[in-house]
Amino acid sequence: LTCQVMSRIEKLVVVGVGLIGGSFALALREHGVVKHVVGVGRSRENLDHALGLGIIDEAFTDAARAVPEADLVLLAVPVGQLPAVMLQMDKRLDPATVVTDAGSTKRDVIRHARQHLPKHLTRFVPAHPVAGTEHSGAAAAKRDLYRGKRVVLTPLPENDPAAIRLVRELWRDCGASVDEMSADAHDAVFAAVSHLPHALAFALVNLIVDHPLRDSLFSFAASGFRDFTRIASSSPEMWRDICVSNYDALLTELGAYERELQRFRHLLEAQDSPGIEALFKRARDAREAWLKGRASATKTK
Amino acid sequence: LTCQVMSRIEKLVVVGVGLIGGSFALALREHGVVKHVVGVGRSRENLDHALGLGIIDEAFTDAARAVPEADLVLLAVPVGQLPAVMLQMDKRLDPATVVTDAGSTKRDVIRHARQHLPKHLTRFVPAHPVAGTEHSGAAAAKRDLYRGKRVVLTPLPENDPAAIRLVRELWRDCGASVDEMSADAHDAVFAAVSHLPHALAFALVNLIVDHPLRDSLFSFAASGFRDFTRIASSSPEMWRDICVSNYDALLTELGAYERELQRFRHLLEAQDSPGIEALFKRARDAREAWLKGRASATKTK
Repeated sequence: LTCQVMSRIEKLVVVGVGLIGGSFALALREHGVVKHVVGVGRSRENLDHALGLGIIDEAFTDAARAVPEADLVLLAVPVGQLPAVMLQMDKRLDPATVVTDAGSTKRDVIRHARQHLPKHLTRFVPAHPVAGTEHSGAAAAKRDLYRGKRVVLTPLPENDPAAIRLVRELWRDCGASVDEMSADAHDAVFAAVSHLPHALAFALVNLIVDHPLRDSLFSFAASGFRDFTRIASSSPEMWRDICVSNYDALLTELGAYERELQRFRHLLEAQDSPGIEALFKRARDAREAWLKGRASATKTK
Repeated sequence: LTCQVMSRIEKLVVVGVGLIGGSFALALREHGVVKHVVGVGRSRENLDHALGLGIIDEAFTDAARAVPEADLVLLAVPVGQLPAVMLQMDKRLDPATVVTDAGSTKRDVIRHARQHLPKHLTRFVPAHPVAGTEHSGAAAAKRDLYRGKRVVLTPLPENDPAAIRLVRELWRDCGASVDEMSADAHDAVFAAVSHLPHALAFALVNLIVDHPLRDSLFSFAASGFRDFTRIASSSPEMWRDICVSNYDALLTELGAYERELQRFRHLLEAQDSPGIEALFKRARDAREAWLKGRASATKTK
């Protein structure tokens, strides 16, 4: 009972009403835990769209006007816009308001919060919902985006446990399972499994754009290429910010990947069939084991 | 009318009754253009499976016993097995029998044919159906695998035009559209759009297998990673053969890709946000234009 009272949100402010922020609002609305949703964004057109779709009830282009009396503020803008948004909010933020974010990198978000929301660190809970598609904007928001997905919290030492609890419960209300880890570990993990693959997919498309046989290549690219490069249709602005803000961890993974390619190159130059097969088999077996583990994890839920 | 008489196949031999060969047989059966299908394979278990599924009517483990009196022989085994299969067939092959293959590389298949089927070059038509999934074996065969897909023929100067016509018609009967190009152009194109992406996907999975944070990485890998690495679940043996047989073209593309990664690395080291965004945007825009072109090509079919 206490929990239900606690997670009742009178006023939710979503800064950045795109796929991530919009889906959060829709999921909480459906779950009946939020009353009034205020959207903040740069584009009036997207805000009107979000109003029309019933994602938000009220819209502002200035975060300062939106945040007073909020129970929760979700920052769901590209990381590069966070400092400006935090500066806008800072003066008008109620001390009781819990603030969280949805950024794909965590060390930089924490850096920004320490700099721009220094008086609010007890109630700023950094979070990363591991979900998304290559589509963006309010029109892409879906109420079930987070169902069965994972959310990582990287709480600050200063955090009020009640603030952490609230954020955790709301993500659970969205259907996600919630883990905690350090911001350092988070950024290393996602550099490898998410940020690097995006950079690799963008690079493959650019190889084709730059290729002398460009038109033939695009003409014969098939479903393998389509799936491999799906993530290269993601927002360039968002991924620019993620890469730059996590550049040290990403450079480490990029180096490791370049070494994997070197290993393959040497085997290929030597036309070493058994060596190449062993390399491929190792990857195939590991991926199959991973898929199997995912499937059984979903079943036991 | 003449065409229909011509494309009537009394006896089809499929060497390698897996996804590719099995789907070819199923599609032609459904289209009513084939009477008797003979399967050849190394694994008795897979052949029994193919018999049970109605993909083939008769099974042999030795190609020599299967090919006499065949109208068409489709070679659908990994490229590495081709020389042995061709040697088996050579003595028993009827001069009238048309032979084609389904290999992902073409220069090496032609090299093998010139060496091992030298008297049959008028009726050996090299072909590459651009289709497949990461699954393999007879159980994965689907009658509609080739519907809406493309098939590339790389005919030999020696080819009898009637043999080319037969192969072209049969692939059209499967629902595919058929193009011709030189074997050189074919191998360069597919090195970039297919062979390289497979190698890159295998390498990314191996990066994670080799990673000190391996368990966390697999635990947090999500749908972007899943799609990016889908092709890393492909047959290691098949892809070993493709890479080794097309190693020169693949090394060229690998070099171009390493340069794309270098370009990204320099921008990342300089934390050059506008440069990274421009790079990503270029890739995103090109991919979106490609998807749009594909969609409208499908519509006008």
